[in-house]
Amino acid sequence: MKALPLITLSTDFGLQDGFVGVMKGIIYSICPEARLVDITHAIPPQDILAGALVLERSLPYFPANSVHLAVVDPGVGTGRRPMAAQMGDQWLVGPDNGLFTLLYLQAERLGQPIRAVHLDQPRFWRAQVSHLFHGRDIFAPVAAHLANGVALAELGSPLPEPIRLELPQPQRVEGGWRCLVMAVDYFGTLQLNLTRADLADAPIKTVEVAGIKIEGLCLAFGDRPPGSLMALMDSSDHLSIAVVNGSAAAHLNVRVGAEVLVSLVL
Amino acid sequence: MKALPLITLSTDFGLQDGFVGVMKGIIYSICPEARLVDITHAIPPQDILAGALVLERSLPYFPANSVHLAVVDPGVGTGRRPMAAQMGDQWLVGPDNGLFTLLYLQAERLGQPIRAVHLDQPRFWRAQVSHLFHGRDIFAPVAAHLANGVALAELGSPLPEPIRLELPQPQRVEGGWRCLVMAVDYFGTLQLNLTRADLADAPIKTVEVAGIKIEGLCLAFGDRPPGSLMALMDSSDHLSIAVVNGSAAAHLNVRVGAEVLVSLVL
Amino acid sequence: MKALPLITLSTDFGLQDGFVGVMKGIIYSICPEARLVDITHAIPPQDILAGALVLERSLPYFPANSVHLAVVDPGVGTGRRPMAAQMGDQWLVGPDNGLFTLLYLQAERLGQPIRAVHLDQPRFWRAQVSHLFHGRDIFAPVAAHLANGVALAELGSPLPEPIRLELPQPQRVEGGWRCLVMAVDYFGTLQLNLTRADLADAPIKTVEVAGIKIEGLCLAFGDRPPGSLMALMDSSDHLSIAVVNGSAAAHLNVRVGAEVLVSLVL
Repeated sequence: MKALPLITLSTDFGLQDGFVGVMKGIIYSICPEARLVDITHAIPPQDILAGALVLERSLPYFPANSVHLAVVDPGVGTGRRPMAAQMGDQWLVGPDNGLFTLLYLQAERLGQPIRAVHLDQPRFWRAQVSHLFHGRDIFAPVAAHLANGVALAELGSPLPEPIRLELPQPQRVEGGWRCLVMAVDYFGTLQLNLTRADLADAPIKTVEVAGIKIEGLCLAFGDRPPGSLMALMDSSDHLSIAVVNGSAAAHLNVRVGAEVLVSLVL
Repeated sequence: MKALPLITLSTDFGLQDGFVGVMKGIIYSICPEARLVDITHAIPPQDILAGALVLERSLPYFPANSVHLAVVDPGVGTGRRPMAAQMGDQWLVGPDNGLFTLLYLQAERLGQPIRAVHLDQPRFWRAQVSHLFHGRDIFAPVAAHLANGVALAELGSPLPEPIRLELPQPQRVEGGWRCLVMAVDYFGTLQLNLTRADLADAPIKTVEVAGIKIEGLCLAFGDRPPGSLMALMDSSDHLSIAVVNGSAAAHLNVRVGAEVLVSLVL
Repeated sequence: MKALPLITLSTDFGLQDGFVGVMKGIIYSICPEARLVDITHAIPPQDILAGALVLERSLPYFPANSVHLAVVDPGVGTGRRPMAAQMGDQWLVGPDNGLFTLLYLQAERLGQPIRAVHLDQPRFWRAQVSHLFHGRDIFAPVAAHLANGVALAELGSPLPEPIRLELPQPQRVEGGWRCLVMAVDYFGTLQLNLTRADLADAPIKTVEVAGIKIEGLCLAFGDRPPGSLMALMDSSDHLSIAVVNGSAAAHLNVRVGAEVLVSLVL
């Protein structure tokens, strides 16, 4: 790894208690010249799938040799394994509980091998390891050692089959797709589990959610007046449902998991 | 621009989805040694005036050659122009929608020329530009190139008249001023659109809001017991209304836009 | 102080208004190569004890020669003194109002002398000092000068007895301890004012709060099914009460200050 190592942090820890600051203190103790980037610390508590979606959306924009520390870890202190992995020129550190599932799929689409290890070398951890805070005691020090250039093979033994989440898949139905709301962002926009790649240029006729049919696809929020409901491809190429200058989630009273029907122009 | 470039970020993106982290990943890809400072990512969604107020309050405290990336951008993907500007030794990057209005006024008071450009050189952007996220696709890369020392004139064509918001002005009335609540801060303190400069040392007799008259002006929160309502000059020299160790907004049930009457000792 | 100075920031300022960004602008103006770490800016407004608890939990994890800037400051602009202190290889800057009480106790347990000064040298401050925002006008510049290597003795006069909070102490009662909820974290876990050191290996029989008795002590969240109430030693060695994948505070409808009875196996 080169000069100016970069480490990102993504957790469900919130920002009120100092948990994230503590991890940074430990990272700087081991890798003083690291650059640190918070991706988010507002993943809903214990929601591994929500964490996986944030990582998928965010990690492709980081430079080569970035180390990504991610902790959503309801199984901390039990048998679940701590892990690290290399995929292409990116490095991951966190619990082996499916949090990196969508990144494995990304790597496979790009033809990149996934080299994962089970972190089983306590000499790279803090001397005392609690049962509750591996972010502090294992993952932060390991990320810092990776950023310092320690080889993956020194940090642990090969982990041939890291755990993967089962992901809800969109269903091909007559005239279109049955899919669902995968995530709701800060603005209240609904992200669906249907991508530009799934649609393969088939033109959309309507998107139906909560009993309401939205006609066609817009390109930009400014295409319709404030308050309008619209369907559009979001900035990560997922079909999404938005309200101009408002919240689709509030407008429709819809949450993650809600069913959506997409009909195509045939 | 010298070593150790500094880039600030101010948006209405919130911190839950990774949007800000993505912009930082892109900045570090182009300008690896940048120092990044978050000013705020909690500007109310689409509220350009609120964003303009935060920038006015914050930017004067940054060192020479800072680049300020700001995105509150309801018109993203429409005809609104992306822009950058230099004013004195500070640099701005964001949408041309009035977000920088109060900084133009600051520059004019200081006698600094405003050199603005319309960002129309896609070779400084990401290869793919979405209709929804110019913070990622245009503004972050342009800010990083500016921090790297790319000249403004290379980034775009002259923009002689950047757009300005119409700002609510305080009215001179008999015996004082009629003004309004411009902003409510995190503590619930009400910031008025009336400054120390407007008052020009005229002593305040009462400040009246929501049917309540506050006598005189305090200097510090500790001047009255907890729970007291007080008027005082805030740390950016605006007249403001506070509750000691409490929230004036909650106490008075008052929001942005509420009318306030200030009477002077005559 | 060496190359790559590190400054942490802990306040009750929130993140919406740019107050924290402004302090960073000032720090970078004085100490351009500082590394900055936010510990938290979500200390409940004016809650000095809550701030003291965050600092106690977080500061031990930072490298030698870190400067810790902390501001929870209801007395700003009154007679309360601005201060800085050295304890071991750590440096503190903030108001002399008890915010550092738990750090003084930590230092005393470690046999480290506390060298405190009253900041009374305005040449290390901003030229204009407001009555409302010493974080910006005094504490940020002083922290930056400390990080630059300015000696404590230059910054102020000796402050022999910095103010300390009175802390609620756990009471030894027949068969156990009477203690209370000191803090509620982001996950809703209740931290009690009873530590592993207080218990000295005495085995816990039950922990009783809000009329509910919890049997024994768990090691990890995964030891019981989701939704279960459990008592456990937290990652800073305080006895705590949690709900697996949930909020004990919400489940029990309990807040800071609630009484807890701990009975021991006799």
